[in-house]
Amino acid sequence: MKLDKRSSVPLYAQLKDLLIERVDSGAYPPGTRIPSELQLCEELELSRPTVRQAISELVSEGTLSIVKGRGTFVAAALEKVDIRGFSAFTFSLLSAASLEHFHFEDYAMDPDAHEHLEKAFGQGVPGGEPGYFRVDWTDNAHRRSPLFLCKSYIPAAMFPDLAADLRARRKMIDITANKYAYLPAKASCRISVRQADTEEARYLDIARGAPVLCVQSRLTSRSGIPCEYDIAILRSDVCDILIDSGRS
Amino acid sequence: MKLDKRSSVPLYAQLKDLLIERVDSGAYPPGTRIPSELQLCEELELSRPTVRQAISELVSEGTLSIVKGRGTFVAAALEKVDIRGFSAFTFSLLSAASLEHFHFEDYAMDPDAHEHLEKAFGQGVPGGEPGYFRVDWTDNAHRRSPLFLCKSYIPAAMFPDLAADLRARRKMIDITANKYAYLPAKASCRISVRQADTEEARYLDIARGAPVLCVQSRLTSRSGIPCEYDIAILRSDVCDILIDSGRS
Repeated sequence: MKLDKRSSVPLYAQLKDLLIERVDSGAYPPGTRIPSELQLCEELELSRPTVRQAISELVSEGTLSIVKGRGTFVAAALEKVDIRGFSAFTFSLLSAASLEHFHFEDYAMDPDAHEHLEKAFGQGVPGGEPGYFRVDWTDNAHRRSPLFLCKSYIPAAMFPDLAADLRARRKMIDITANKYAYLPAKASCRISVRQADTEEARYLDIARGAPVLCVQSRLTSRSGIPCEYDIAILRSDVCDILIDSGRS
Repeated sequence: MKLDKRSSVPLYAQLKDLLIERVDSGAYPPGTRIPSELQLCEELELSRPTVRQAISELVSEGTLSIVKGRGTFVAAALEKVDIRGFSAFTFSLLSAASLEHFHFEDYAMDPDAHEHLEKAFGQGVPGGEPGYFRVDWTDNAHRRSPLFLCKSYIPAAMFPDLAADLRARRKMIDITANKYAYLPAKASCRISVRQADTEEARYLDIARGAPVLCVQSRLTSRSGIPCEYDIAILRSDVCDILIDSGRS
């Protein structure tokens, strides 16, 4: 592609497309340094502000990244993490065989839980006393920043000692023992994409407004009583969801 | 929240947060007009360019929209479409009971299919002659712009008359009759989020770079032969995916 100085498309936008083309074609491979602003100005006979604006937008879109004192680089291809065997139970605390891979951020009675759940799941979320425990947790992987943040809401009436049990690091199998009537047997979930709010962005170490995957699950017991609600926020730049289906 | 003129955070960024807070709290409800630039300048003692920049960014982020000659409005909440009962078979052409709800954009032998599929699904995509039919289709809903675009790839060796059959508008049940060995029995899919490319953006009537849901499915016959590959691109601002799981 060539830049057209008489086009109604602004030059910086044309330059963006040109640079994207060079990245996509492999002319500028991932992780390598692209020519300096000055070099691009000379090569393409453009002004410095034009080049600067194109690069600055590509940086904010994540295509390029600036390393101070070293130059502008093509962003390295992200290492993706697959969430395998995904189902509506994936982010269920009560369905977890073990809590070993969980990292608990917080767990306590949440006085506003009912309000949050009605907002997220619509009407039909049972309220009543003594309310819900909220457990904030993430994976235990040794990464610089977490892949997801999950808030699990569990009716305190069903598991009155949940916070104490988690604090004591009791095993899930002991926590749920003799509570079979309250264990999840069915689950439905909604997967959507939205923009990260300030809290999520800070926690996940991404920009506010960056797209995140939101997985909201409602779990019910065999007799249809809601026993758990989960809201998981996943970094969409890193996490893929894998689903297997069979037909009998 | 209050604006802090001595903060290192630029005033326009503070104003953006303030306006978002007013939208989120319901002080400015969806679909209503917000105060004019001049009114905001006076209320908050800000300069016109500061107010203009905050509003212009909120417009490009989709929080606000400008209606010419009428003012600036809080964007109406988007009407969401739920893809219910989602599974790895959802975008399978060969698994469709009927093609009535499909709108075919194009169907033909795709000479580059194998290359595209290897790029999308990795190694292990069988090549060989006579290659793949590619069927581009979408839903048949009467909307201004489609919700998704799906490309289904089907080995021509299994369904040599597929293009002719689709052109003749034959029923799926007739197309797949006596082809039971080639029908999908198992499917696995990957759900990811990425930025729309130019072609996708144009087709779905969204901005290039807007986040889209990408659903890639690999379908195999009872004996494990790959019989279909699908790549569906969904508007993430409109489509939610709903999954139900049961535990026996």
